[in-house]
Amino acid sequence: MQVTVRRDILSANDSIAQDNRALFDETGVLVVNVMASPGAGKTSLILATAERLPDGLRLGVIEGDLASRIDADTVAARGIPVTQINTGGSCHLDAPMVRGALAELPMGDLDLLFIENVGNLICTAEFDLGAHLAVVVASVPEGYDKPYKYPGMFARADVVLLNKADLLEVFDFDLEAFRRGVRMVNPTAPVINISCRTGQGVDEWLAWLSSRRDTQDP
Amino acid sequence: MQVTVRRDILSANDSIAQDNRALFDETGVLVVNVMASPGAGKTSLILATAERLPDGLRLGVIEGDLASRIDADTVAARGIPVTQINTGGSCHLDAPMVRGALAELPMGDLDLLFIENVGNLICTAEFDLGAHLAVVVASVPEGYDKPYKYPGMFARADVVLLNKADLLEVFDFDLEAFRRGVRMVNPTAPVINISCRTGQGVDEWLAWLSSRRDTQDP
Repeated sequence: MQVTVRRDILSANDSIAQDNRALFDETGVLVVNVMASPGAGKTSLILATAERLPDGLRLGVIEGDLASRIDADTVAARGIPVTQINTGGSCHLDAPMVRGALAELPMGDLDLLFIENVGNLICTAEFDLGAHLAVVVASVPEGYDKPYKYPGMFARADVVLLNKADLLEVFDFDLEAFRRGVRMVNPTAPVINISCRTGQGVDEWLAWLSSRRDTQDP
Repeated sequence: MQVTVRRDILSANDSIAQDNRALFDETGVLVVNVMASPGAGKTSLILATAERLPDGLRLGVIEGDLASRIDADTVAARGIPVTQINTGGSCHLDAPMVRGALAELPMGDLDLLFIENVGNLICTAEFDLGAHLAVVVASVPEGYDKPYKYPGMFARADVVLLNKADLLEVFDFDLEAFRRGVRMVNPTAPVINISCRTGQGVDEWLAWLSSRRDTQDP
């Protein structure tokens, strides 16, 4: 009974995710689903990316949180088109929520759309939003063992960004064990050390994103 | 339909949580549900508490994770009775899981049981395990805004521990805004700055725990 209901919910979600994806493709917007623990640096990644984006590339953002408009206000203050979804109790965004939010963004004017998912290493991995790419942001203070404890999330990543990498030594972070953990569940996703605070690694991330943009474009 | 199923699941959970609580009271074990984001320091808190526990107080631990035995192995290496629950896909422990795990612990020999929940600031808040106390561990690298974004979790806390407080300045953490956020949803829970690494604040946390132990005891 529980299992059937769950399957129905996921299947209804996937159908709307496909509609979202068709709309993204039609309008030529590359869409990135950003997932992470609370406080790993999803908003900081979006801001660091916006700062270094090649001229002429236009960015939009959907912010997902249980409550508050803190992130949307931060993004809007940089002059970036943004809309906030508050999920209430739900621990993840789903495709219908994203569908509703699209009406509030100038999709025809954008090249790139970041969807910042709810801070959660579990539930967010299960719901397709229609995005082209899944970015998982891990962060050094969380410890090396996250891929071992949350394998489903890391298995879904197209790229893993290890943020707050300027603090590797402060936290005595075991980088080798972290990378091995990612590889156990994900043989292909690049793992890029970044620091949104210092800018370290952000160019490498942008180069990867740019290469994927070329792949997705017709 | 979804709502009804959800209500049934919660009600079945609560009934078993009451059984758990009755068993804890019968055996005289004070039970603490430890909740936090991934990597905030739940296991470190348990180890720091174990190190400084007054002589004669006997501690046991239930570890909850989607996957891996990393935390249980760490705790067992200190000679503490521990059992690991792997939830598979589930983003939280529930009362039946805890019920099953109790058989693997020497409950009659314990005074204090920590249940380390799955790393998640959302789902874990909704499921009563039968514990006497709810401890929420926030951590400085996550940022000041977590109580605003995850109000349900902070509302449920009997005490909020702000871990990694030795790094307040490194992260330019806004302590005043954090405390204000907790107070907005929770007028009574003490907020204690701790560092499991340096030991800062751990005695204050132990004093609070000891005062609650006296209150719960017959």
